[in-house]
Amino acid sequence: MTPNIETFIGCDSSFEEAKIVLFGAPFDSTTSFRPGARFGPSAMRHESFGLETYSPYQDKDLTDYRIFDSGDLELCFGSAELALLDIETRAEDILAAGKLPLLLGGEHLVTLGSFRAIHKRYPDVHVIHFDAHADLRDDYLGAKLSHACVLRRCHDLVGDGRIHQFCIRSGEREEFRFAKVHTDLHPFNFEGLEELTRWLALSGTPVYFTIDLDCLDPSAFPGTGTPEAGGVTFPQLLEAIQMVAKTNVVGADVNELAPMLDQSGVSTAAACKVLRELLLALSK
Amino acid sequence: MTPNIETFIGCDSSFEEAKIVLFGAPFDSTTSFRPGARFGPSAMRHESFGLETYSPYQDKDLTDYRIFDSGDLELCFGSAELALLDIETRAEDILAAGKLPLLLGGEHLVTLGSFRAIHKRYPDVHVIHFDAHADLRDDYLGAKLSHACVLRRCHDLVGDGRIHQFCIRSGEREEFRFAKVHTDLHPFNFEGLEELTRWLALSGTPVYFTIDLDCLDPSAFPGTGTPEAGGVTFPQLLEAIQMVAKTNVVGADVNELAPMLDQSGVSTAAACKVLRELLLALSK
Amino acid sequence: MTPNIETFIGCDSSFEEAKIVLFGAPFDSTTSFRPGARFGPSAMRHESFGLETYSPYQDKDLTDYRIFDSGDLELCFGSAELALLDIETRAEDILAAGKLPLLLGGEHLVTLGSFRAIHKRYPDVHVIHFDAHADLRDDYLGAKLSHACVLRRCHDLVGDGRIHQFCIRSGEREEFRFAKVHTDLHPFNFEGLEELTRWLALSGTPVYFTIDLDCLDPSAFPGTGTPEAGGVTFPQLLEAIQMVAKTNVVGADVNELAPMLDQSGVSTAAACKVLRELLLALSK
Amino acid sequence: MTPNIETFIGCDSSFEEAKIVLFGAPFDSTTSFRPGARFGPSAMRHESFGLETYSPYQDKDLTDYRIFDSGDLELCFGSAELALLDIETRAEDILAAGKLPLLLGGEHLVTLGSFRAIHKRYPDVHVIHFDAHADLRDDYLGAKLSHACVLRRCHDLVGDGRIHQFCIRSGEREEFRFAKVHTDLHPFNFEGLEELTRWLALSGTPVYFTIDLDCLDPSAFPGTGTPEAGGVTFPQLLEAIQMVAKTNVVGADVNELAPMLDQSGVSTAAACKVLRELLLALSK
Amino acid sequence: MTPNIETFIGCDSSFEEAKIVLFGAPFDSTTSFRPGARFGPSAMRHESFGLETYSPYQDKDLTDYRIFDSGDLELCFGSAELALLDIETRAEDILAAGKLPLLLGGEHLVTLGSFRAIHKRYPDVHVIHFDAHADLRDDYLGAKLSHACVLRRCHDLVGDGRIHQFCIRSGEREEFRFAKVHTDLHPFNFEGLEELTRWLALSGTPVYFTIDLDCLDPSAFPGTGTPEAGGVTFPQLLEAIQMVAKTNVVGADVNELAPMLDQSGVSTAAACKVLRELLLALSK
Amino acid sequence: MTPNIETFIGCDSSFEEAKIVLFGAPFDSTTSFRPGARFGPSAMRHESFGLETYSPYQDKDLTDYRIFDSGDLELCFGSAELALLDIETRAEDILAAGKLPLLLGGEHLVTLGSFRAIHKRYPDVHVIHFDAHADLRDDYLGAKLSHACVLRRCHDLVGDGRIHQFCIRSGEREEFRFAKVHTDLHPFNFEGLEELTRWLALSGTPVYFTIDLDCLDPSAFPGTGTPEAGGVTFPQLLEAIQMVAKTNVVGADVNELAPMLDQSGVSTAAACKVLRELLLALSK
Repeated sequence: MTPNIETFIGCDSSFEEAKIVLFGAPFDSTTSFRPGARFGPSAMRHESFGLETYSPYQDKDLTDYRIFDSGDLELCFGSAELALLDIETRAEDILAAGKLPLLLGGEHLVTLGSFRAIHKRYPDVHVIHFDAHADLRDDYLGAKLSHACVLRRCHDLVGDGRIHQFCIRSGEREEFRFAKVHTDLHPFNFEGLEELTRWLALSGTPVYFTIDLDCLDPSAFPGTGTPEAGGVTFPQLLEAIQMVAKTNVVGADVNELAPMLDQSGVSTAAACKVLRELLLALSK
Repeated sequence: MTPNIETFIGCDSSFEEAKIVLFGAPFDSTTSFRPGARFGPSAMRHESFGLETYSPYQDKDLTDYRIFDSGDLELCFGSAELALLDIETRAEDILAAGKLPLLLGGEHLVTLGSFRAIHKRYPDVHVIHFDAHADLRDDYLGAKLSHACVLRRCHDLVGDGRIHQFCIRSGEREEFRFAKVHTDLHPFNFEGLEELTRWLALSGTPVYFTIDLDCLDPSAFPGTGTPEAGGVTFPQLLEAIQMVAKTNVVGADVNELAPMLDQSGVSTAAACKVLRELLLALSK
Repeated sequence: MTPNIETFIGCDSSFEEAKIVLFGAPFDSTTSFRPGARFGPSAMRHESFGLETYSPYQDKDLTDYRIFDSGDLELCFGSAELALLDIETRAEDILAAGKLPLLLGGEHLVTLGSFRAIHKRYPDVHVIHFDAHADLRDDYLGAKLSHACVLRRCHDLVGDGRIHQFCIRSGEREEFRFAKVHTDLHPFNFEGLEELTRWLALSGTPVYFTIDLDCLDPSAFPGTGTPEAGGVTFPQLLEAIQMVAKTNVVGADVNELAPMLDQSGVSTAAACKVLRELLLALSK
Repeated sequence: MTPNIETFIGCDSSFEEAKIVLFGAPFDSTTSFRPGARFGPSAMRHESFGLETYSPYQDKDLTDYRIFDSGDLELCFGSAELALLDIETRAEDILAAGKLPLLLGGEHLVTLGSFRAIHKRYPDVHVIHFDAHADLRDDYLGAKLSHACVLRRCHDLVGDGRIHQFCIRSGEREEFRFAKVHTDLHPFNFEGLEELTRWLALSGTPVYFTIDLDCLDPSAFPGTGTPEAGGVTFPQLLEAIQMVAKTNVVGADVNELAPMLDQSGVSTAAACKVLRELLLALSK
Repeated sequence: MTPNIETFIGCDSSFEEAKIVLFGAPFDSTTSFRPGARFGPSAMRHESFGLETYSPYQDKDLTDYRIFDSGDLELCFGSAELALLDIETRAEDILAAGKLPLLLGGEHLVTLGSFRAIHKRYPDVHVIHFDAHADLRDDYLGAKLSHACVLRRCHDLVGDGRIHQFCIRSGEREEFRFAKVHTDLHPFNFEGLEELTRWLALSGTPVYFTIDLDCLDPSAFPGTGTPEAGGVTFPQLLEAIQMVAKTNVVGADVNELAPMLDQSGVSTAAACKVLRELLLALSK
Repeated sequence: MTPNIETFIGCDSSFEEAKIVLFGAPFDSTTSFRPGARFGPSAMRHESFGLETYSPYQDKDLTDYRIFDSGDLELCFGSAELALLDIETRAEDILAAGKLPLLLGGEHLVTLGSFRAIHKRYPDVHVIHFDAHADLRDDYLGAKLSHACVLRRCHDLVGDGRIHQFCIRSGEREEFRFAKVHTDLHPFNFEGLEELTRWLALSGTPVYFTIDLDCLDPSAFPGTGTPEAGGVTFPQLLEAIQMVAKTNVVGADVNELAPMLDQSGVSTAAACKVLRELLLALSK
């Protein structure tokens, strides 16, 4: 008789063998509107057993690839800096072992922990960012470390022209002005992604890929803190993920599922399917 | 220290300065199926703080315009006639001050109160009506004042050819027959709206604009008493609102959000965004 | 093959044979706070199939008695007077056939319809009233026909000293003052009920018995429009029902279940059990 | 006074007169993930009163046709074989009377009961199958009678080339391999349906039509046990139903609504509308 | 980095060292009313992290005892006999290793699997049964293996006078008649338990202890398939558990938590606390 | 026409006139289990309109006293120290004006902000603490400022023998050990409160009164982050509040309502009633 091991479906490789390592960051302390993203990674793990390991979209099966799920970090609530430090350390350990870190949030701020580790190792990294919100505020009610500032903090690290934002349909006027000068912002949808990824793939540029699931329309993904009408459809997102996967992705994350906000379970099921398709697209 | 003032986000002008005046009619006594629209206006006010004042769709910001939110009327439940009288009086007061009344329902019947005031001042007014339901019954179980009869009551006032209905996909056979002769009914979507609004704008005809939010597909807007599959998308509605706003709109309303029926909060968030876009489109 | 008949469990006598006749009044138009009591009677009928017909409390079985369930009246929303008229007519028809009318609300105002019929036939009737709320306002926002005024309207008919109220723990100061002079109000619990019912039973006085289920503590019965902490327990209510049933009960009602407000189903299950015990206690 | 009869709206013909007979199979014992489809048929019947009998899509009205609703079978939980037997018997009785059986599930396994009766009478029958899931497993955790195997069991009866599957987007790799050889599987959408139905209509081939409502996208239909992102829209489904109705449909079913999983009621409302349109399309 | 192990809090001994072994039976196929008990054991494991390992009631701490949690069995839905066989085998393995099996249901039928193993090893075993329902039907709609028959099946094994039932407040008349002759049924509460357990403890009789959590009042435990008003309080249940734990308990189970039916989480939290107190009481 | 002012019912005095000042602290960033207490104060304000201003328990009416509701502070999420500073400042301002600060949380940590202000002004203050949890950890996952440590931080300020804890039924073993030496902990209920309050009243000792609403049993108050079975009843809490109010209360708070966790609204209604009774008891 063995103890009860719970991983994302089909991710039962050992750490040593694995090419991709999942880790969860159940943190949402800076969420200003509706919290609950902390429960995202465990819900995805738990509900993934309603999903098949096989994808008819890509004709691939998770059981053919080596993925390790290291569970959730135990993060300190109430201190964003401490939480980010723990996330960064875990990402560094995974990178040091030559594997791709795939972070499950949590609120979007967790991206910063993982991205710091990536940026140290790949100083020329670009960011591809799918989101409803620009996340480019300099601070939020005085806090520099907030979900609403996370891409601004990434910009602090990489500078102009290396952050590529898609599906953005919400933000302060100031954020859109900032984006005009400093980032490559594509409002509402994925227009321009194909061209961008073709160019990044050709050059072999390292890419960090961060997916805020609220880029999806709330009809497909209601279970998130700040739903924004007018998003992309699920098939559009799948197609976009496959485009990005053709570039040299060196780290990724999926975040902002707040499962308690959608008691139909549809959002968690959609998040699981996005993760399966992302894992398969990144597995070659 | 000041008392707790709660307005729709960005609508904090004084009454005197304002060009548009919001007022809520928390009434749903004649709702025959699932009640709860009474909670619509306060939910929109309360949840609007998850919304930005800036719209990337129109590149405009609510903080640049003068809008006053006068809160909810205190209406008598159980008597439709008394409630309509209070709504009419409030609309008259706003019109008398030279401002545009924007009513938040409540069930669709509340439109009649506001429309009576408008019609007195603008006898040649046309009605543009977005809805899933024709609302053209002559009575409902004997009641002439029912949400299911509201456009029929408007027709009593304005007569043939001045009511323009869009997105209609539900009603008794008799209502569709009535519409063939007496109203300008466009089933299912916004086909014909562009032509109509171009013509109305040219002539400067006064327009009353009534939006039953259930014109949206239930996937985008589940929180309503009588959801009807097969509706329009959120971007289609935004585009249609901008078309109508080019005409001479003299009064408007947004109704039928029943927030308790959608505990994900997506419907309330969508309603807030519709209201923001409508306010911005009407502000010139 | 027969059509789908849905009655409260064990109530499948014919009208002719029946001693007790159930009828539902799915009305809640005057509810000022949270509506939904309109769905009470159909939910009780629907969910009663999770209940046994046998009561170990009374060692009696519904299948041994003759009870007819006539379904729900089709009531006009938006007009309290019309709805009350239909309820009164139905109660009169049942009384004319020599049977006991047992009304299922709906909001508490429906009691007035049934009670008018009872009072015509039994001018010396007393009322036993279980409720969290005094319901003694003279009007509510101008309306005389409101759930908050229903016992006051009964008092208009029977005058002082004939209304006996139990479990009352909420009301305006004015209502408690009125009660001191005009009704027999027992706050918080059933103190005094045993003595009262002994006296009423001895004299054979006709009794109308109205149960607002919110007399129960919200822990046992959360699914109601205006829950009031500090109510009685379920066993206390059962015991009280058995006391009242020893008097000459000539009409009764059970109301204010709002099933959508308690998605655990516990409130509907409790309401069904209250109704079963009431039916068994009234069946001799 | 009559007892409380509850049918799907507009389906109040007698059995003798009826051309179509509805019957419910409230069974979900083999559901491996989230149960609740047992409540589908009674929820559809109950909530159909929020629907109109008239369809503006087909300009037809249920009140013009003769449909009988025989309510729900009382099925044994815990034994799939016994439940299927009862379903088969009911379908045989309806066929023997020269009427079209229209089964309301329940989980998808119930199809097998109805299909066995159909196949005995029409050995050359084809199956048109709308679903998110292939349902082609040979067994599920050892059980041959499982919702995940139902089309495989149908294939046992009819053999290769007679099962036509549409909208399929989930399954084990093995099921897709089986489908390549043995069934006519169209992934993701309705591509190929028009051609197929034209050919079937010309030949007059008897067709069994089984609709798993989870073919719809979860945004339109979240209330189902295993929601699969990436489905068809409601208008696409309506159009497909009208195509299939032009063939010689000899039996049909609609299943997998789990109403408790979608507390907004949108899924039940959508299921009712699908059933109305199917009934109207099959009524000539 | 280690894979994600999820056990009930404080139960992280190895199998070899353990004195008590937890195992889950996520089965509810025969549930006739509202399903969902299948999710009970995993919800308890998942939510136990909101619980402390220390009990101020018993001044004991789970971390001081050796308990192993072997996770959930993978049971076949749709076949009660197969599921019971797997449960029986697991219980036998635990008994063979000299440990106490503690089963987490699932619906109450799962008890039979565990009890068959216990009865083989301890033919003179008595059963102490806490439940709202008598569960003494001989069959339910023809099925002998049903949650409504489970104690009757236990009676088939042990005969008269060895089943002791407490808190029973629901059942068919026939079940109460059966109990009068064949079992030791204590209605409504724990009256008689102290005397019984004193006697059983003195004699050292082996005892199987089965707790249907619906013995609790629905106010304390709404999340269960068939809630029955009029149950015991949480402190009463804790006290009763400590009495039973003084006898020679050789096997136990806790069942009928249906977590989805109580979205407040209160029922799952209560179930976790019952399990903690039971584990501590059984640990000496 | 006036803007929409929303206060707790009956608390519409001006700041200048008021004797008691309400202020909300919508903060729950350190909540380790289930967040949502941030929505407590606004939900209480919003739902208080279902409550009467008159209390039959105390025969007093809120409209007779002068209470000002200053709304919610705008607190920074993600930084406990900054949030506490803002709370402390607000409490100081209220104290400086000679009024009693009554804080509405939020998670229990907010107490520390208010208590720091109180302690500066009243160095000899005692604390009366109602709670299910001891909240005496020295740190929680490294954080000293956590809801689980809040009474420990108060102890840092006042030292031994001045913190009086009631209803405590959960904590680590270490916390109960700490309490034995350093605080006056009364487990499970209010035993000892009458004696304590008599003594404190006689001496005129200043008292800070902090109510974590989870001292109530979850049956009466399910809407809280960490529900603990076995709590006190609502009438017991009312009685206890009246006892404490007889001492020299110089500051108070009510916290840990998480309204989204109880969609029946019962918890919010109970919280409102607790606040009404507390305000009336403190008003002399």
